[in-house]
Amino acid sequence: MAVHFNQVAIVGVGLIGGSLGMGLKRCGLAGSVVGIGRRVENLQTAVRMGAIDRYVAAATEGVRGADLVVLATPVDTYERHLKEWGASLKPGAIVSDVGSVKGPLVAQAEGLVGERARFVGAHPIAGREKSGVAAGSPELFRGARCILTPTPQTDPQALQKIREMWEAIGATVCTMDPELHDRVLGAVSHLPHVAAFTLINALTDIRERSVPELDLLAYAGGGLRDTTRIAASSPEMWRDICLWNRTNLVAMIEAYEDRLRHLKGLIASGDGVGIEKELERAKQVREKLN
Amino acid sequence: MAVHFNQVAIVGVGLIGGSLGMGLKRCGLAGSVVGIGRRVENLQTAVRMGAIDRYVAAATEGVRGADLVVLATPVDTYERHLKEWGASLKPGAIVSDVGSVKGPLVAQAEGLVGERARFVGAHPIAGREKSGVAAGSPELFRGARCILTPTPQTDPQALQKIREMWEAIGATVCTMDPELHDRVLGAVSHLPHVAAFTLINALTDIRERSVPELDLLAYAGGGLRDTTRIAASSPEMWRDICLWNRTNLVAMIEAYEDRLRHLKGLIASGDGVGIEKELERAKQVREKLN
Repeated sequence: MAVHFNQVAIVGVGLIGGSLGMGLKRCGLAGSVVGIGRRVENLQTAVRMGAIDRYVAAATEGVRGADLVVLATPVDTYERHLKEWGASLKPGAIVSDVGSVKGPLVAQAEGLVGERARFVGAHPIAGREKSGVAAGSPELFRGARCILTPTPQTDPQALQKIREMWEAIGATVCTMDPELHDRVLGAVSHLPHVAAFTLINALTDIRERSVPELDLLAYAGGGLRDTTRIAASSPEMWRDICLWNRTNLVAMIEAYEDRLRHLKGLIASGDGVGIEKELERAKQVREKLN
Repeated sequence: MAVHFNQVAIVGVGLIGGSLGMGLKRCGLAGSVVGIGRRVENLQTAVRMGAIDRYVAAATEGVRGADLVVLATPVDTYERHLKEWGASLKPGAIVSDVGSVKGPLVAQAEGLVGERARFVGAHPIAGREKSGVAAGSPELFRGARCILTPTPQTDPQALQKIREMWEAIGATVCTMDPELHDRVLGAVSHLPHVAAFTLINALTDIRERSVPELDLLAYAGGGLRDTTRIAASSPEMWRDICLWNRTNLVAMIEAYEDRLRHLKGLIASGDGVGIEKELERAKQVREKLN
């Protein structure tokens, strides 16, 4: 029989939390979905869009009776949330999340839910540069990868239910150690975001210094648009990701700096053969990424 | 009356040269279009796609009698080309180009066409990561910007004809000093390409060092895909752009390095307020770029 939760609480009904709610309801995986959030207007939109059935401001009330509680807020808030309503959880409830960083957060969450409930770390790789439930869609996770990060403490039944839930709304699920998750995502997601944010900020600096009279970005083509699309992502969320994956990310930025310095040296010295080799190396790898 | 050329020669029938040919023929701007290139298979595709009417291998023969000759080869080849067939040009012919770098190339081309013909530098901002005429389209330039780079030597009538030609095939034309062009494009195009090539190469390094057992790119989301799309661009073409815009590009890479070092420092020291400010600055600028 397909996985089913009588009552689901989603803490943070934004793009990801809201889209999960829509997916759960659309696929009949939840009897009812309650949203917990700060902004009433956003929660009303979530009801209108079919992401949640109702909402409450008091999280302790919202999680009471829920079989599944999903944390879909910036990762830095997990501790505060779990301390606030952990004791109100129904015994045996599953607590999961959708956060982009795992590592120490998983052990932290496991500690905070204690014996009362069962934590399963999850990360659907399906972000967008838009925030808020209004940008959400029940199809957001279709074809996306979802990484679950079990530990020796993870309850196998809870893990299986979370796996089936994500598969039912269209994701391809894999499992990974929380530490490995952060190295992998640091490389394929966090570093590209840092590069995109930096590129836009560098262009602002260059404009101010070099062509202050021009609306520089008016001359942008599709290349710049694509390269920097993710620089419009939520600063609050990405601040937390940078902080929580700090050690991996700093090392990866340094690997990036090394490569950039190398290419800059080739350009500065006019080494055409070296430049072409460097670009060809990138092209061959990039072409494998469809 | 609309601009019209009895005979046009396109030197290098790739993505841009081929799409220009398709646009000229579709809009009835050319009596006949002859393609000049190295690869017969590509030239046959160009005929089949309606980019050119016929092709020749000998450029001297191809440019003879042409009212307009468009250089659509990597910029490093301009000198060789103009020396090869400059003396075969019809007196008064217009020579133009589609290159992504201008600066010293414009003076070079003006010198090489001499009194015999009239050079007008042009750069339609409409690249793609795909190369070859097969990826071309007569609609490629619709809505795109095309920068013309006249100098005091430029013939006003030739400039006007080239402007009307690009407008007729859908581009929005502006003019700019060749040196300013290279600063602007260095910022909005060349630097983003360097960042994208570097990101892919850094990920290869990170994978080899940190997770050699994993197919790292299998975990990529839309963010990495977009950020690195242009890293599949032609290494040969981008080698030449890097070399010809070397001085601007190195200075811009340094501006980028400064910003990256700043953000890395904020992350390393765990300065959440500073990180968020940096990301917010990027987001606000990026959101203006539609």
